[in-house]
Amino acid sequence: MTLITLDDIQQARQVIAGKLHRTPLVTATVLGEMLGVKLLFKAELLQKTGSYKPRGAMNKLNSLSAAEKANGVVSMSAGNFAAGLAYAAAQLGVKATIVMPEAAVKAKVAATRGYGATALLHGAGKDLMPKAMELVETEGLTFVHPFDDPMVVAGTGTLGMELVEDGPEPDYVLVPVGGGGLIAGVSTAIKLHYPKAKVIGVEPTGAVKMLTSVQQHKPVAAEYLSTIADGLAAPFAGKHTLEHVEAYVDDIVLVTDDEIKDAMLLIMERSKLFVEPSGAAGFAALLHGKVGVPAGSTVICVLSGGNIDRERLKAIL
Amino acid sequence: MTLITLDDIQQARQVIAGKLHRTPLVTATVLGEMLGVKLLFKAELLQKTGSYKPRGAMNKLNSLSAAEKANGVVSMSAGNFAAGLAYAAAQLGVKATIVMPEAAVKAKVAATRGYGATALLHGAGKDLMPKAMELVETEGLTFVHPFDDPMVVAGTGTLGMELVEDGPEPDYVLVPVGGGGLIAGVSTAIKLHYPKAKVIGVEPTGAVKMLTSVQQHKPVAAEYLSTIADGLAAPFAGKHTLEHVEAYVDDIVLVTDDEIKDAMLLIMERSKLFVEPSGAAGFAALLHGKVGVPAGSTVICVLSGGNIDRERLKAIL
Repeated sequence: MTLITLDDIQQARQVIAGKLHRTPLVTATVLGEMLGVKLLFKAELLQKTGSYKPRGAMNKLNSLSAAEKANGVVSMSAGNFAAGLAYAAAQLGVKATIVMPEAAVKAKVAATRGYGATALLHGAGKDLMPKAMELVETEGLTFVHPFDDPMVVAGTGTLGMELVEDGPEPDYVLVPVGGGGLIAGVSTAIKLHYPKAKVIGVEPTGAVKMLTSVQQHKPVAAEYLSTIADGLAAPFAGKHTLEHVEAYVDDIVLVTDDEIKDAMLLIMERSKLFVEPSGAAGFAALLHGKVGVPAGSTVICVLSGGNIDRERLKAIL
Repeated sequence: MTLITLDDIQQARQVIAGKLHRTPLVTATVLGEMLGVKLLFKAELLQKTGSYKPRGAMNKLNSLSAAEKANGVVSMSAGNFAAGLAYAAAQLGVKATIVMPEAAVKAKVAATRGYGATALLHGAGKDLMPKAMELVETEGLTFVHPFDDPMVVAGTGTLGMELVEDGPEPDYVLVPVGGGGLIAGVSTAIKLHYPKAKVIGVEPTGAVKMLTSVQQHKPVAAEYLSTIADGLAAPFAGKHTLEHVEAYVDDIVLVTDDEIKDAMLLIMERSKLFVEPSGAAGFAALLHGKVGVPAGSTVICVLSGGNIDRERLKAIL
């Protein structure tokens, strides 16, 4: 295995150019003053489909052979990656099937189908991968991993490049961590431009796997998955993503659901951005002192998504 | 009385330049497709203080004499104008006192004080103006009206100028209406550039005064005030604002609280913008067919503010 390069990221940028948003990097003046830092939010929740997911999906799909594209792809997801892949597939004219759990949020299933993909409802979390593999066998579909793929990592790296170009040199970049696809790409772009910047991953206490994977130097599964940050509840860390995390990430810290909820509501109230729990995890770590950030530091928090519907919001409030 | 001119608006732009945001005009692709129109949102909820209010306040304060500035100003507000005036006053080094009702939302009082203004809690809605006038008499403060002032209207006109410069020619511009300060300025900028564009004001059924004022050709008070759109619950329409509405606004339509709530949640869920009820009124009118918009029209909805805290949000959900 090897790390992706800045060239890989630049190529990914060509792929997504004109098809996905360059999302704004906004100053969070009031919240920053409250915490004694210069605070910026990467408003990636304003990305197409409401999360960063189409960046990696589109780069991966584009890399497939003509035959693979013609046959179509299959993946599995309970949420944001489903919509992201569906959107990317529609843009590139590729047929996509996403295996989703039967209990998936209806709005996410509807969004996936709305972009023209096939959403196949099947069992629960553990049943998704076997079903996807079955479709690879029986229908000749190409499997696309939601996060553990160098092309997906290069795709998320485009978000990191936008941080480099649109903002000041950061002292800290705080990134939510699920399977590690987002932080793998972002940390690559940041560290290869700003070696002194600290890139910190933030996991929910209810879905710890990257921290333990780093400690054990191998990808491990979460012992349990129970968090309001559904987008971070990947069952395991990836091999490729772990390699990038070990190379470029300075620390992984944990936040509780209550800390995430508090951060989410503050971002809504003060910055007017409708962030989902997963997207607020980075700011939650800053807000609750999980990272030793000196006063006056320049801190970027990546708000990775905003897919939360009124029922879940009501339950959280 | 006379109408403001484009020169007045251009002068206001010089006043606010570098002190207030030029807020983004964002495409609402999914919601637009749902309604069969090309839909854009003016994301003014991302303005400093979370609403358009500082535009007019800053332009008004800047127009005062050195003596008036030195003595300080007084106004009254239960919400967004208080924070907007406080922010503008701090930027221009003017001392501001805002009379607020005793039942004002604590967060709004805190925000007003946070910007360095004096928030004087006094009685209820009807008691605010007499108290403000008392301070004019006893302390020599200069009264600043929250909306019915040509300088305030020229200030809100800067938002209209941004629409002209940043977007396509609109067929419809939908603007929430309280006392009329926002629509007076926006309609001036729009109509003097695009005479064929329809500018539509949207009032809540629980705070009707501009519609009745237009019908009676004079400013009248609302018969009652009962709406979740607290920012639109001005007790009366203004004289200056009515004059601009009669000159430039094509229609005033009404929306119910349920329609506003529905629009607010859709904007949050789909566009990820944390809009307050008042800010969603324009889109509510489009969503619920209150304006006869032909398919394929270009429609701009002004999302005028985003100041809603978790308690109120919970109550609305």
